[in-house]
Amino acid sequence: MSVIFYGCVSLDGYLADKNHGLGWLHASGSPEETEYDAFYKTIDIVVMGRRTFDEVSKLGSVADIYPTTTNYVFTSRNDLEAEGIQTVSGDVVTFIQKIAADKRIWLVGGGGLLAPLLEAQLVDRMYIQVAPVILGDGIPLFQKQPYSRRFVMSDVKRYGQFAELVYDRLPANT
Amino acid sequence: MSVIFYGCVSLDGYLADKNHGLGWLHASGSPEETEYDAFYKTIDIVVMGRRTFDEVSKLGSVADIYPTTTNYVFTSRNDLEAEGIQTVSGDVVTFIQKIAADKRIWLVGGGGLLAPLLEAQLVDRMYIQVAPVILGDGIPLFQKQPYSRRFVMSDVKRYGQFAELVYDRLPANT
Repeated sequence: MSVIFYGCVSLDGYLADKNHGLGWLHASGSPEETEYDAFYKTIDIVVMGRRTFDEVSKLGSVADIYPTTTNYVFTSRNDLEAEGIQTVSGDVVTFIQKIAADKRIWLVGGGGLLAPLLEAQLVDRMYIQVAPVILGDGIPLFQKQPYSRRFVMSDVKRYGQFAELVYDRLPANT
Repeated sequence: MSVIFYGCVSLDGYLADKNHGLGWLHASGSPEETEYDAFYKTIDIVVMGRRTFDEVSKLGSVADIYPTTTNYVFTSRNDLEAEGIQTVSGDVVTFIQKIAADKRIWLVGGGGLLAPLLEAQLVDRMYIQVAPVILGDGIPLFQKQPYSRRFVMSDVKRYGQFAELVYDRLPANT
């Protein structure tokens, strides 16, 4: 499998404000300007945390928003049910490693899911769109960790007021 | 005066590692690839904190590194003396506001100096070079703050493994 992060952050590195809100993001311009549709078509499996699921659900049904992918929500709740999702619990690294080699997995949101995957060196590609806003506080994309990780920057693009930075995993043995 | 930030950060937003070290940065490629020389020629005054001064001093004399500018170091120590610098203490906002209108000020390093200037909406331009490294922890460029600040992204460039993002202050009344 390959694991891909794709998402927006503020200039100070937050995925969302302290209340998990995205109003600042919508105020930064239209996501239509990006190549999101082309990206989504390449994805087989969507993985998100429960907080991200709650935010996505405010915009509509996950079955409509992510219609062609298998969508997993990590949660410790047994009672979470919604159209278009399957719930999972436990270790995200173990879960990801069991997925077939030809599948492309999009990690939506979720610093809490990203951190163990970065530590396990399982993140193959990151598309990070930087919005021109210093939020001041919020939910960080990258949590504090006792390790460092180096990537290869493979592309830099501009979409309106967003800068998109693309990073790939270092080849093995480097 | 105009106030400009120009500097490198890790992908997770740190200016330096926890020990104020920059080894991760030097490992990311040569700064010669950027337009630093052209940038420095436009600057009249350099302002830095004492920690940044200590780091710069490891590379050589400030008088040699910043030879054509007036260089101020913010410090509460009275005994700091070095060739090519003047020490200042007190409020950075008050200090900056007294500088003549035609002067261009480069804020080197220093999340601690940047924060009050951002709050006072005195930062006119930021050149941020993003290195392809998740450091995990360190000295953040943007400190946590109870306010948000929106900028206008005016340029995105690539220099080897660095992405340079350029932001300008929003015009007044927006």
